[in-house]
Amino acid sequence: MTARLIDGRSLAARVRDEVATQVASMAEPPGLATLLVGDDPASEIYVRNKRRLCTEVGMRDLHRHLPADVTQAELASTIAGLNADPAVTGILLQLPLPSHLRPADLLELIDPDKDVDGLTEASAGRLALGKPGLRPCTPSGVVHILDRAGVELKGRHAVVVGRSNLVGKPQAQLLLERDATVSVCHRHTADLAAITRTADVLVVAAGVPHLVGADAVKPGATVVDVGIHRTEAGLCGDVDTAAVAEVAAAVTPVPGGVGPMTIAMLLWNTVAAARLQRVGGTATV
Amino acid sequence: MTARLIDGRSLAARVRDEVATQVASMAEPPGLATLLVGDDPASEIYVRNKRRLCTEVGMRDLHRHLPADVTQAELASTIAGLNADPAVTGILLQLPLPSHLRPADLLELIDPDKDVDGLTEASAGRLALGKPGLRPCTPSGVVHILDRAGVELKGRHAVVVGRSNLVGKPQAQLLLERDATVSVCHRHTADLAAITRTADVLVVAAGVPHLVGADAVKPGATVVDVGIHRTEAGLCGDVDTAAVAEVAAAVTPVPGGVGPMTIAMLLWNTVAAARLQRVGGTATV
Repeated sequence: MTARLIDGRSLAARVRDEVATQVASMAEPPGLATLLVGDDPASEIYVRNKRRLCTEVGMRDLHRHLPADVTQAELASTIAGLNADPAVTGILLQLPLPSHLRPADLLELIDPDKDVDGLTEASAGRLALGKPGLRPCTPSGVVHILDRAGVELKGRHAVVVGRSNLVGKPQAQLLLERDATVSVCHRHTADLAAITRTADVLVVAAGVPHLVGADAVKPGATVVDVGIHRTEAGLCGDVDTAAVAEVAAAVTPVPGGVGPMTIAMLLWNTVAAARLQRVGGTATV
Repeated sequence: MTARLIDGRSLAARVRDEVATQVASMAEPPGLATLLVGDDPASEIYVRNKRRLCTEVGMRDLHRHLPADVTQAELASTIAGLNADPAVTGILLQLPLPSHLRPADLLELIDPDKDVDGLTEASAGRLALGKPGLRPCTPSGVVHILDRAGVELKGRHAVVVGRSNLVGKPQAQLLLERDATVSVCHRHTADLAAITRTADVLVVAAGVPHLVGADAVKPGATVVDVGIHRTEAGLCGDVDTAAVAEVAAAVTPVPGGVGPMTIAMLLWNTVAAARLQRVGGTATV
């Protein structure tokens, strides 16, 4: 094993410390409204974790829990209330929703300046146009990891495997914004390894366990693994970390890589939204 | 010269014929509001051309000409009026505007369902998220050209040179949506020719005359030239067409390639917007 393992947990802890320092310096703490509908056990755990970290950095936990049989109109009205409430600086609608609700329509009701998940059309448009705005947490966490690990992006070839709205597509935009040459691969890519082997920075968000092995990585590359899968042998990512570590200069492990940074970026986004709502401008990250 | 020259003029004429057929089948013709501010001679020519083609395909020309000293508030109010007017199905704000106006703020006032230039945050977000919406005319014109020229995109490597909001970035999204593997290059790309030589489909929108020569093209590739430059020797594009034609399978000429298709797509977008506003849904293209 020759590659440096990038410790996402400690980088995320540092981001949370910086967020806490910023919160402490503000006249009023930002408030994060996590919106949970029904009783999905996994969602409950995710939301509990977000609320705990929110409180730890000194922000207000403005959680709302609505029953599983809430109507589309009731939920829309709740979101409108959160948009109008100046104490609420960030709104997170926890997905998935019960099947009688239309999540895409509800997400669009969130004020883009409070859209701390960065999932609305307006947030996606601001990113696409290079305008200030709130960015999706996972891909902006990946850029934070690369920056804090001292990885140069400008002029380098960054290859993204996967093209989801949540990770792959915004990831490509964020890397392009940082002056990388960017390629996006996916299930229809003819010879995946031939392209990934040209990457200086390789971000894998394909949702396929151990898709990327040593033969798909250029010696000296940095490899970021966004995948997470529960297998009989424990958690693993989209990258065969042990094999790739023999070739790459640096890799993020699973668990303990991108995951912790994603929640840290949610807190980061909430502070950015709060600070900029108060000066009356558009949120920048 | 071995490459096939793709005749953008005849492809655009065919698109306009299809638009005219669609318009003829509609109970009421769509209306295009071109909004011209001041007396920029180039803008006047562009707008006159758009209005002429709009009338030729049977749509209503709802042109507005405002004086150069119009205020931001007056122009905003004009846009609000066009948004509210059911006879107006498409709104085009001709740029550039006089320097006392803020074009980005004004563009954002256009109803995304009437945004036939596809330049608003909402339109960019809908494209980024793969949702129905109105797409920018030049890059969607390029995809039309490739389709009508019989060029396969799925699983092929498409390389875009340039990353403007108007062409490069939406072009990459549109090619990705069509299942191409997509790379985006720009001024900071380390070895441009090394990447463009791997392209099955190469779209050049860099704004640099004759940036791409024969050494930058893979034998058998399709090359689309979005650039247009006025030189002493006449109009030329970003591609050295004569040289590249010895290597590529097909190239678009300048003039007579992408240019005519861009205006055809404006008409196409106006019909798409009209048809879908009437059924009460979101516009699809």
